[in-house]
Amino acid sequence: HDLGAYVELRQQALPPELQYEFHKDTTSYDIEDPAFALALREANATVNGALRENVKTLRVLAERYRHTPMLERTHGQGAKVATFGRRVLTWIAELRLARDAFERAQVVCLHSRLSGAIGNYGGGLSPEIEEKALGILGLTPFHGATQIMSRVAYGQLAQSLELIARVLGKIALDTRLGARSGLPLWHEPFGKKQKGSSAMPHKKNTILTEQMTGFARMASGKARTIVENIETWECRDIAQSCVERVEWPDLYHVVLRMLGVMTKVLSGLVVYPDHMLEEIARSGGTYASDEAKNFLAEEFAKRGVAANVAYRIVQLASFAVFEPGAFAKKMRENPPTNVEDADKLLLVIQEEPKPRMSHIRRIIEFAGLIPNPALEATPEMVREWNVLLREVFADEATLAKWRTCFTLVHLLQHEERIFERFPSGEIGM
Amino acid sequence: HDLGAYVELRQQALPPELQYEFHKDTTSYDIEDPAFALALREANATVNGALRENVKTLRVLAERYRHTPMLERTHGQGAKVATFGRRVLTWIAELRLARDAFERAQVVCLHSRLSGAIGNYGGGLSPEIEEKALGILGLTPFHGATQIMSRVAYGQLAQSLELIARVLGKIALDTRLGARSGLPLWHEPFGKKQKGSSAMPHKKNTILTEQMTGFARMASGKARTIVENIETWECRDIAQSCVERVEWPDLYHVVLRMLGVMTKVLSGLVVYPDHMLEEIARSGGTYASDEAKNFLAEEFAKRGVAANVAYRIVQLASFAVFEPGAFAKKMRENPPTNVEDADKLLLVIQEEPKPRMSHIRRIIEFAGLIPNPALEATPEMVREWNVLLREVFADEATLAKWRTCFTLVHLLQHEERIFERFPSGEIGM
Amino acid sequence: HDLGAYVELRQQALPPELQYEFHKDTTSYDIEDPAFALALREANATVNGALRENVKTLRVLAERYRHTPMLERTHGQGAKVATFGRRVLTWIAELRLARDAFERAQVVCLHSRLSGAIGNYGGGLSPEIEEKALGILGLTPFHGATQIMSRVAYGQLAQSLELIARVLGKIALDTRLGARSGLPLWHEPFGKKQKGSSAMPHKKNTILTEQMTGFARMASGKARTIVENIETWECRDIAQSCVERVEWPDLYHVVLRMLGVMTKVLSGLVVYPDHMLEEIARSGGTYASDEAKNFLAEEFAKRGVAANVAYRIVQLASFAVFEPGAFAKKMRENPPTNVEDADKLLLVIQEEPKPRMSHIRRIIEFAGLIPNPALEATPEMVREWNVLLREVFADEATLAKWRTCFTLVHLLQHEERIFERFPSGEIGM
Amino acid sequence: HDLGAYVELRQQALPPELQYEFHKDTTSYDIEDPAFALALREANATVNGALRENVKTLRVLAERYRHTPMLERTHGQGAKVATFGRRVLTWIAELRLARDAFERAQVVCLHSRLSGAIGNYGGGLSPEIEEKALGILGLTPFHGATQIMSRVAYGQLAQSLELIARVLGKIALDTRLGARSGLPLWHEPFGKKQKGSSAMPHKKNTILTEQMTGFARMASGKARTIVENIETWECRDIAQSCVERVEWPDLYHVVLRMLGVMTKVLSGLVVYPDHMLEEIARSGGTYASDEAKNFLAEEFAKRGVAANVAYRIVQLASFAVFEPGAFAKKMRENPPTNVEDADKLLLVIQEEPKPRMSHIRRIIEFAGLIPNPALEATPEMVREWNVLLREVFADEATLAKWRTCFTLVHLLQHEERIFERFPSGEIGM
Repeated sequence: HDLGAYVELRQQALPPELQYEFHKDTTSYDIEDPAFALALREANATVNGALRENVKTLRVLAERYRHTPMLERTHGQGAKVATFGRRVLTWIAELRLARDAFERAQVVCLHSRLSGAIGNYGGGLSPEIEEKALGILGLTPFHGATQIMSRVAYGQLAQSLELIARVLGKIALDTRLGARSGLPLWHEPFGKKQKGSSAMPHKKNTILTEQMTGFARMASGKARTIVENIETWECRDIAQSCVERVEWPDLYHVVLRMLGVMTKVLSGLVVYPDHMLEEIARSGGTYASDEAKNFLAEEFAKRGVAANVAYRIVQLASFAVFEPGAFAKKMRENPPTNVEDADKLLLVIQEEPKPRMSHIRRIIEFAGLIPNPALEATPEMVREWNVLLREVFADEATLAKWRTCFTLVHLLQHEERIFERFPSGEIGM
Repeated sequence: HDLGAYVELRQQALPPELQYEFHKDTTSYDIEDPAFALALREANATVNGALRENVKTLRVLAERYRHTPMLERTHGQGAKVATFGRRVLTWIAELRLARDAFERAQVVCLHSRLSGAIGNYGGGLSPEIEEKALGILGLTPFHGATQIMSRVAYGQLAQSLELIARVLGKIALDTRLGARSGLPLWHEPFGKKQKGSSAMPHKKNTILTEQMTGFARMASGKARTIVENIETWECRDIAQSCVERVEWPDLYHVVLRMLGVMTKVLSGLVVYPDHMLEEIARSGGTYASDEAKNFLAEEFAKRGVAANVAYRIVQLASFAVFEPGAFAKKMRENPPTNVEDADKLLLVIQEEPKPRMSHIRRIIEFAGLIPNPALEATPEMVREWNVLLREVFADEATLAKWRTCFTLVHLLQHEERIFERFPSGEIGM
Repeated sequence: HDLGAYVELRQQALPPELQYEFHKDTTSYDIEDPAFALALREANATVNGALRENVKTLRVLAERYRHTPMLERTHGQGAKVATFGRRVLTWIAELRLARDAFERAQVVCLHSRLSGAIGNYGGGLSPEIEEKALGILGLTPFHGATQIMSRVAYGQLAQSLELIARVLGKIALDTRLGARSGLPLWHEPFGKKQKGSSAMPHKKNTILTEQMTGFARMASGKARTIVENIETWECRDIAQSCVERVEWPDLYHVVLRMLGVMTKVLSGLVVYPDHMLEEIARSGGTYASDEAKNFLAEEFAKRGVAANVAYRIVQLASFAVFEPGAFAKKMRENPPTNVEDADKLLLVIQEEPKPRMSHIRRIIEFAGLIPNPALEATPEMVREWNVLLREVFADEATLAKWRTCFTLVHLLQHEERIFERFPSGEIGM
Repeated sequence: HDLGAYVELRQQALPPELQYEFHKDTTSYDIEDPAFALALREANATVNGALRENVKTLRVLAERYRHTPMLERTHGQGAKVATFGRRVLTWIAELRLARDAFERAQVVCLHSRLSGAIGNYGGGLSPEIEEKALGILGLTPFHGATQIMSRVAYGQLAQSLELIARVLGKIALDTRLGARSGLPLWHEPFGKKQKGSSAMPHKKNTILTEQMTGFARMASGKARTIVENIETWECRDIAQSCVERVEWPDLYHVVLRMLGVMTKVLSGLVVYPDHMLEEIARSGGTYASDEAKNFLAEEFAKRGVAANVAYRIVQLASFAVFEPGAFAKKMRENPPTNVEDADKLLLVIQEEPKPRMSHIRRIIEFAGLIPNPALEATPEMVREWNVLLREVFADEATLAKWRTCFTLVHLLQHEERIFERFPSGEIGM
C-alpha cells in the first residue's frame, strides 16, 4: 500500500489528461514484483562478490598448507593423517555445491511478471508489453503467474542461501574444534588490544567462529520462513509481504556478514604446523593403524591366518599405547574425595616427568603385545600372536616395508592428486 | 555398524588367504555412501514417474476447462474473471519450478565417493579405483569428500522435495478453498459408499486435500531435519546416520503419497462450471471493475477530470451492489438477543424472495450513484459525478464500447495466448 | 564486548584505588544475564497488557453475538449451527492455553545468575552476594548455571510466544475464511479512504488478517531460532548472542503487532448476522442432519430397522437438496468450448430466477426420496425407505417432534451452558 | 475413518433396536480425542520413568566426582577450575527446566472433550455427560473445544519434549567435546568386542553421543511439525491427523531412545580424573588468571596504579606461557613445502624432550615479564611493570597469599555450597 500511496500522489501531480495513463492497467505487484527481482539481483551480485573473495582466501590457505600434515579426525577422534591443505579443499568442495545451487536459483529469479491483477493481462496489458517491459530490466516473463510471481522461485533462492550459511557454519565449526585449547591447531586472529574476557586475561576466545554458528541458525530460520510463503490463497494473499520486507534483507545481511567474517578469519588464521605434527606424534603411531592392519593381514594371509587377527593385534597395540600408568589407574578407580587431596595430586602431576610415548609400530614389530582386560584376548591368544609377529618380522625386508607404512610420504601419496583433480573455475573455485 | 557386522561374517566365510582382500582399504562409508546414492536414484525415478503422471493429469484438466470462466480471487475476494484452465496452468507453472529444482538436485546426487577413511585414499585405494568403481554404478567421484559424501548434496535434494510438497500443498489448498460449501466450484471425488462424517450424513468433506496440508507440514519438517546434517565434525560424525535412516524413507513416502493422492483428486475432480458462472453473476459486474475504471478514466481524461474520480465512482457503485437491504441492516445493528428471535428471523429469510441483483454496469451507465456513509463522498460530489456520467454515456457508441468491458470475450482475450506460450517439455509439462 | 568496552572506559574514570573494585570478580554475563532478564520482564509486561486488551475485545464480541446463530463448518463444509458468540469462545479458549504457557515461562525467566566466569563464584563472589544482588532486581538465583543462565528458560519463553502467535494466526485464518466474498459473514474494518486494490476499485481485501498469517510464520521462525540456542559448548559459547540481539526484539515486535492488529480487527469487525442466517437457510436443513438421523434411527429401532438406514436416508435427502438442475447438469457434462458460449451462458444465469431451495425436512417427512446415482441405493431400496418414512410420519405427534429437530432453539440448547462454564479470570479470560 | 469403519461393523452386530444407541450423538473425535489423551498419558508415564532413571544416573555421577577438579571451558578454551561433579549439576539443572515444562504440559493434556460434531453438544450429549464420561477416564472437560481438542495443548507438549531432547543433545555434545582424542576426559563405554571402525582398529568413536545430536534434530523437526497443527480451519480440518499418526509415536520413540542411551552412556562413562588434573597442569596457571588479576589489582590500588595494568600483566604472562619455542616458530613462519620434510620434522618432534611447562604464577612473582609482539606493551612499560611486581612481592606474607590464589582449595571454595543449594525433589532432581 506504499505503492498505492505513491501512485495516487504521483498521479495527482500529472495533468488530468495524462493521469489515466499512469499506472494504467497495472496493479501494484506489476511494479513491485519486477522491482523485487531487481533488488534480489543486486543483492545476489554482492553475495557473489563476497563468495568469490571467500573462496579465493580458502584457495590461498589450501596452497600454503598443501604439504602440512595434520591428524585428521572422524568422530572427534584422531584417525589418519592428511594435509591441512586437503582439509581446506573439503571445505571449498562443500561451499562449491552451495554456490552452484545459489547460481541456479539466481537464474530462476531473473523471471518475473507484469500481467495484471490476476495474471491474465487486464485491458491494455498483453504478453508483448510484459515481455518488452521486463526485457528493458533484463528480466524474462514467467508464464503461468497469478497476481504475483511464484514464490517457489524465491523459496529456492532462500534455500540456496541457507546452504551457503550452513557450509560456512560447518567451516566455522571445524575451526572452533581445531582451536580448542590444549594443543590448538590454529587460532582466530586476535587483536593486539583485544581482551578475550573481562574476567580472565589469558583468554583467546573463538568469538568470530562461534558467531557463525549463531548466524547459521538465523539464516536457516529466515530461509525457512521465506519458503513458507509458497502457501498463498488462489491468485495471492498478502501474507508474504511482511515476511519479505523483514526476512529478505536480514537474510542477506546475515549471509554477507558470515562471508565477510569468515574471509577475515581464514585470511588471518594463525596456524600452528608444529602442533599439528605434535598431535600426530602423540597418537603413538595409531594414525597408520589402517595400513598396519592391512600389512599384517597380507602377511598373515600368506600363513593362512584370518584377517581378523590382524585387526585385533593392531587394536590391542593401540590400546596399549594409551594404557594409563599406575598413578592414573589409581585415580580412575578412586577419584579424590576432597579438594585438599586434589591439590596434592595436582602438584605431583605438575612435577612428574612425562614418560616417553609408546608407539604401535614398536609394540608390534617387537612382538610386545600384552593382554588388556578392556578387550577380549586371552593370554594364550596374545602369546600366539606374539609368536606370529616374531615370525613375520624375522625378515629385514619385511621390516623395512612395514616401517614405510608409518611414513607421511607413504600415507600422503595421493594428496597431490586430489589437488590436481580438484576443479577450479571462473569464480576461483 | 550393520555393515561392520556384515563384513566380519562374510570375511570369516572366505579362505584365510582371501580374507584380507575383502573390504581391504575401504571403510564402511566407502560402501554405504555409493549404496545410498543408488537408493536415492531409485527413489527419485519413482518420484519422477509420479510427477509425470501428476502433470499429465493437470494438463488434461487445463485443456478440458480452457474456456470455462470463473471468478478469480485475490485476498479471498472475487477479483476478475479467468478460465479455470488458466488457473490450472498457474499450478503447473509452480510445480514445474519445483520439479526443475528437483532435477538439478538429482544430478548433483549422482556424485559419490570411495576414497577411504578420511577421503584421501588409504593404502590400496586411489582416485583411479574410485572413478572406475563408481563408474560401474553410474556415479561420478566427488572431489573433496571426507569420510563421507558432502551432505550439502543431499540437503539440496531434500529441499527440492520440500518444494514439490509445498506446491502440491498450495494446489490442495486452492482446491479446498474452491470446495467450500455455499457455492462450491468443485468437489473432491466422493465414493458411492463413502461417509463424510459419522454424525452428519450430509457431509462431503475435503479430507484428501486436507491431508495434503498435513503431509506438506511433514515433508517440510523432514527436509529441514535432513538439511541440518550438513553440520558434521571434521571428517565426519555419525549424527547424520539415524536421521537418514528414518527421515529419507519417510520423506519419499510422504511426497509419493502426495503425488498419488493429488493425481487421484485432480483426475476425479467433480467440477461445477455452472457454479463458476453463478459466482461471476453474483458479483454484480465487479469482476470488470478494473476495465470499468480504465474506461471511465479515459473518458474523463478527455474532459479534464482526474483519473482518481473514475476510481471512486466505480468503488461507490461496487459498494452499492452489496448494500444490505433494510432487514439485513437492522440485524447488523441489532443482532438477536435470544434464540427464539433467531428462529423467527430464519423463517423470514427462508421464505423471503431474493431481489434481483444490482450491477455496477447499470448503476454507472444510468448515473445512479448514491452517497454511501462507508466511503468519503459528499452528496455534492456524488451529484456532480452523476452529471459527469450522464455526459459520458449520452453517446450510443460510447455506451456500446462500455458494455463490451463486461463481456467475457473481452476480458479473456489473452487467455488463449497464455496457453500458447506456456512451455511444454519432455516430462509433459 | 560492548560491555567490556563500557567497563574499561568507566573504570578509567575512577580513581586508581577504586578501579579494582569496579566490575571486580564479575564477568560480562554476570551483568548481561540479569539485565537481559529485566529486559524480558519489561517486554513481557507489555505483552501481558496487549493480551489482556485482546481477550477483553474477544469477550465483548462473544457477548454481543451470544445469540447470533451461524452455520459452523468442519472441513470447510457447513456442519451444524452454533452461535457466533460460541465460536469466539473457542478462540478465547485456545488463546488462554497459550497465555497460560506464557505466564509459566515468565516465572521461569525471573531466575538468573551472578556467579562468575564459570558459574562457581570466582574470588569475591558467593551465593549470598548473588542472592542479594539479584533480589534487588526482583530476580531469583538459578542454581546450576554456567557462565550463562540456562537457555532452556528462554527457549521455553520463545515457545510460548510462538503459541500465542499461532493462535492469533488461527483466529485470523478463521476471520479470512469467514470474509471470503460470496456470502461473507464479516469484514475486517475498512477505512473510508482505503483502496482495496490499485487496479480493482471494488476490492475489500482482508489484508490485516493475511498479514497475521505472515507474522505467525515469522514468529515461529524466530522462536525456533532462539530455542536452538540451548546448544552451547560446555560453560558457554557466544553463538547465542547475535541470535538474541536480533531475534528477541523482532519476536516481541511481531507478537505485539499481532496482538495490536487483531484487537483492532476484532473490535472493528463488521459482522453480518443476516448473512449468517442466510447461510443456514441455504443449507437446506442439512444443518440438522445429525439430529434428523438420530430421530429416524430411534423411530426405526422401534420398528426393528437398522440404524444405518437412517444414515443413508438422510444422506440421500441431503444430496437431493444440492442436486443440480438440467442447465447445470448439462454444463457439468459439457463445459463451454469457447468463450462466446460462456458469455451467453452467463446472461442466462444472470436472468434465470432462482428456484426455491429444497429442504431435507420436507423431503423426508413427505417421503420424497428418489434414487441418486452418486450413492448406492437401488430404486427398490428407495421405495422401501419411502414406505418406512410414510409410516413414521403418519403420526402428528411424531411429526411435531421431528420438526423441532430443525429449530435453532433445540439445536442451540446447550450454548448458554458453554458460556456459563467458560472460565473467566483475573486477566479477563 | 478407521473409527467410522469400526462403528459401522460393530453396529451391525447389535440387534436393530440397540443399534441407534451405539455411537449415538457422538462424532468420531468424541471417541478419538479422549483415546488420544489416554495414549499420551501412557506415553508420558514412560517418559517420566526414563527421565527419573536418567536424573538418578546424573546424580550418582555428580556425587562420585564431587571433588574431582577439571579445567572448565568457555568458548572451547580452558577457563577456570571446577569439579566434574559441578559440571554434572549444570546438566541436571537444564534437564530440570525441561522436565518442569514437560510436567506442566502433561497436566494441560489431561483435558479433553466429548461434545459433538462442532463442540456444542448435539442432541443427546450435554456438558454433564461429557464431564462424567471423561471423568471415568481420569480426564477433565476442555471448555471451548470445537469438534476437536485444541491442538495448542498438544503443541505445548511437543515443545516440552523438544526441550528435553535438546538438553540431552547438549549433554551429549559436552560429552563428545570431553572425549576428543588428545587428552580425553572420559570415554563412552566401549564394548570388549566392539570395533570402532572397520578400517582403523585403534578407534574408540563417540557414536552413541553423536547419535544424540541426530536424534535431537529429529525431535525438533517432529515437535515443530506437531505445533503447526494448531492451524486448523474453523471447527476443524483433518490435516492434523496424518501428522499425529506418524510424528507422535516417532517423537516419543526418539525421546525415549535418547533417555535410554544417555542413561547408558552416563552410567557407564569411563572418567579420567588424571587427565582432568593433567589438563589443569598444562594450562600453566592460567586457570587462576582471574584471581591473579584481582590480587594484583588490589595490590596496585594501594599504590595508585590503574586496575587495567593488572589485567595487562596477567595477559602478558599468560601469552608467555604458551609462547612457541624456536622450532615451532620456524615452522609457523615456514610450513613444510614437501612431505619428505614433514617426515623429518615429525621424527624431531617425536624424539624431542618436552621442556618444563612455564607458569604464570612463577613469571609474575619472579617479575619475569618480557615484551610480546602480539600484545601492545612497549619494553619500557614491561620494565616498569616488572619493577612494580618486584615491589609487590618483596613481602613474604603477600607472596604466600598470592600463591593461595592458585590452589584448588581456594578456587573451589564455593563448590560445596552449590551442591547444598542445588534443589532436589520427588523425581530425584
